[in-house]
Amino acid sequence: MAPMNKLRLGVLGSGTGSNLQAIFDAISMQRLSAVVACVISDVPDAYILERARSHRAPAFHIDPAPFKTKLEGEAEQRVIETLRKHKVDTVVLAGFMRIVKPGLLRAFPGRVLNIHPALLPSFPGLRAWEQALEYGVKVTGCTVHFVDEGTDTGPIIVQRPAPVLPGDTPETLHARIQEQEYLAYPEALQLLAAECLQVEGRRVELL
Amino acid sequence: MAPMNKLRLGVLGSGTGSNLQAIFDAISMQRLSAVVACVISDVPDAYILERARSHRAPAFHIDPAPFKTKLEGEAEQRVIETLRKHKVDTVVLAGFMRIVKPGLLRAFPGRVLNIHPALLPSFPGLRAWEQALEYGVKVTGCTVHFVDEGTDTGPIIVQRPAPVLPGDTPETLHARIQEQEYLAYPEALQLLAAECLQVEGRRVELL
Repeated sequence: MAPMNKLRLGVLGSGTGSNLQAIFDAISMQRLSAVVACVISDVPDAYILERARSHRAPAFHIDPAPFKTKLEGEAEQRVIETLRKHKVDTVVLAGFMRIVKPGLLRAFPGRVLNIHPALLPSFPGLRAWEQALEYGVKVTGCTVHFVDEGTDTGPIIVQRPAPVLPGDTPETLHARIQEQEYLAYPEALQLLAAECLQVEGRRVELL
Repeated sequence: MAPMNKLRLGVLGSGTGSNLQAIFDAISMQRLSAVVACVISDVPDAYILERARSHRAPAFHIDPAPFKTKLEGEAEQRVIETLRKHKVDTVVLAGFMRIVKPGLLRAFPGRVLNIHPALLPSFPGLRAWEQALEYGVKVTGCTVHFVDEGTDTGPIIVQRPAPVLPGDTPETLHARIQEQEYLAYPEALQLLAAECLQVEGRRVELL
C-alpha cells in the first residue's frame, strides 16, 4: 500500500452542498484523508457556500456569465486560477449544474470527479431519478466517476444501488439515492487518496 | 388480497435449466404457488429436459428448423399447441436462446416472462455480464420482465443488484448474477401468482 496522501479537494456546486457535508463528515470521522481546500459556486446565494464557510473552508462565487449551461471562457479561467491558488489536486463536482469543458479537464487531468444519481450507463443527463421512475426500474442508485468530455460517460469508480419502492415519488426516490451518494462519494475519494485506483481504458481497477 | 392462484408454468429453455431448478425449489419450499406444467427446449440434448423429467414434469424437444435464431412458423405453432395442451397460463423464458415472435406473445398476452442478466436498461442483448465487465460498472444484476416485441424492453417486475468485484472474470461475475436470478425469478412469479402486479404503460406497480 502506498503512503496515504491527503487530497486537496476543490468542490464545485450549485445547490445545498449535501454531498460536501458528507465529505466534511467523512474527514472528521477519519474515513477520508483529505482537506477541502476551496469551494466554488456559480450561484451567488447557493447554500453550499455558507456550508463551506461554517466549516472554515474558503468559499467563492464565480459569475459564469455570459454562459447559461456551461463553464467556459473567462469564468472557467477564474475557476482554474482559484483552484490552483488553493493548491487543489482533485476537483469534486457536487451538484454542479454546468457542463464542464475541456479547459478544466486539461488543467486537472484524470482528477475531476462527478457523482450521478443513477447506475450509469442507465439514465444519464438531468433528473435521473425521474427518468428511472418513468422507465419503471426496480433498482437504481448512484455512480461516482471520473469526468471525461462526454456527458456522464467517464470511468466508474464506485456505484451503490438503491431500491425503487412501491408508492415512490420523485422526491422519496431521490432522497433514498442521496443516502447512497453520501456513502459513495467519500468512499471513491478515499480510494483515490489511498492510490488504490488504476484506470485502464474506461475501466477503473482496484489495486 | 385476491385468492392465491396456482400458476401453470410453461418453461422454455436452451441450456442447463438452472433457473428451472430455482423454480422447482421455490415450489417445494412453498415460496411459489405454481406447477411446472411443461418444459420445452429447442436443443435436443439440453440438460433442462432431463432436469424437468427428473422432477416428473412433461418435457419436449421441438425442432426450431428452419430458423436459426428465432422461434417462428411451424415450430412456434407447435410450441403454442404444446403449451395449450398442458393448460399453461404463464410462459417462462429461462435461458431460451431464441427471439420470441408476436405469435407466441399474442397467444399468451401479458403472460410471457423473461430474465435478463443485467439491470436493464443497461446492457440488453447477449452476454450482458461481459458487456458490464467491459463497460466497467461496479454494480450490475438481473431483471425479470414481461416480454414485449422489443429486445429486453418489456415492463420490469423485479430487479436484484450484484456487485462487480476486483479480479472478476466473466465467469465469476456471471455466477454472482445467477445467484440473484435464482431469487428474482421465483419472487417475480409469486407476485404474479398473488395477483399483486398491475401494468401501467411500461411500469409495473405492486398492489
